[in-house]
Amino acid sequence: MAIIEVSVVPLGTGTPSVSRYVAEAERVLRGEKDIKYELTAMGTIVEGELDTLLALVRKMHRTVLDTAGVMRVVTTVKIDERRDKETSIRDKVAAVEKKLES
Amino acid sequence: MAIIEVSVVPLGTGTPSVSRYVAEAERVLRGEKDIKYELTAMGTIVEGELDTLLALVRKMHRTVLDTAGVMRVVTTVKIDERRDKETSIRDKVAAVEKKLES
Amino acid sequence: MAIIEVSVVPLGTGTPSVSRYVAEAERVLRGEKDIKYELTAMGTIVEGELDTLLALVRKMHRTVLDTAGVMRVVTTVKIDERRDKETSIRDKVAAVEKKLES
Amino acid sequence: MAIIEVSVVPLGTGTPSVSRYVAEAERVLRGEKDIKYELTAMGTIVEGELDTLLALVRKMHRTVLDTAGVMRVVTTVKIDERRDKETSIRDKVAAVEKKLES
Repeated sequence: MAIIEVSVVPLGTGTPSVSRYVAEAERVLRGEKDIKYELTAMGTIVEGELDTLLALVRKMHRTVLDTAGVMRVVTTVKIDERRDKETSIRDKVAAVEKKLES
Repeated sequence: MAIIEVSVVPLGTGTPSVSRYVAEAERVLRGEKDIKYELTAMGTIVEGELDTLLALVRKMHRTVLDTAGVMRVVTTVKIDERRDKETSIRDKVAAVEKKLES
Repeated sequence: MAIIEVSVVPLGTGTPSVSRYVAEAERVLRGEKDIKYELTAMGTIVEGELDTLLALVRKMHRTVLDTAGVMRVVTTVKIDERRDKETSIRDKVAAVEKKLES
Repeated sequence: MAIIEVSVVPLGTGTPSVSRYVAEAERVLRGEKDIKYELTAMGTIVEGELDTLLALVRKMHRTVLDTAGVMRVVTTVKIDERRDKETSIRDKVAAVEKKLES
């Protein structure tokens, strides 16, 4: 299992607002099985198998690039994968909060 | 007002777990005035004035670098600043959710 | 055609030096057809078809994760793809340099 | 000494080309003392003291945000700082190339 953060930004749309395009990318995640995801103010965090996640990144990126009026997309992805233990979006946040309390 | 996402990663600590170091960086944010922040599984999102935010990035980065046993730190920062309207962590997420509902 | 930048960082290796692991990831690129790439101080820039590039990212990431002694890898990828014209590593740098001269 | 990579992207400019804005950010670096920098296809890599570098990031970011027609800027920064030895743009690339040859 891996966790990724993905952010899809269209360039040259003529408006500084990108929420419409981010929503298109989010729609790709809806209805997907075997993943968990969370929308944040700076991207979307998704948990699942690496191959599933990379396929989703491709689909989110291309969905925005295929939107009318979009000529260029810059997509940023951070992949976090570990072998020593199971990890999850929830566990990562909980691990830091536990350290903060002690 | 700007919004940043910051992620501080120590290298060569001998353990794949970084929550202890992330907690040190989070402690920098506690007690700070005039900022709002949110811990996610992939970083910390902070809202405030650009100069305040950059000073915090510096402090979080150096706090981890100054921790015993840490010889190298890679810090990633994304800065999002706009002039056409007020923005906030809450508003950014709400704008996408509103588009998803329509 | 797209251009990506990829950076593969192993965590918890016990040494702050990562050049050995970056070299493993670079070896993945050698012998690949239909791509152009360039090593920089902060990552590797690769030019090619999106699907080819994503397959390479996966291979570079997993090659480092499969290296002895590595339990966790954080890989960062930036994808830049445009539809309005052909783009290349060389052209992108040249476009900025041309603007700087004028 | 630290090494950073910085990438400044204006949103909503009405054109997918950003070289004009990247050139404005590059001009900030010209004439600066005590830094070395290198333009790549995906950003600019700069070597120097951390405080000098963060001040430059701020200036590059705001220079693009202050350009006519720009209402929003997303700037990405990666900071790499180590304490165990001197590092430089040239040395980092050379260390990987040396490993590739052996």
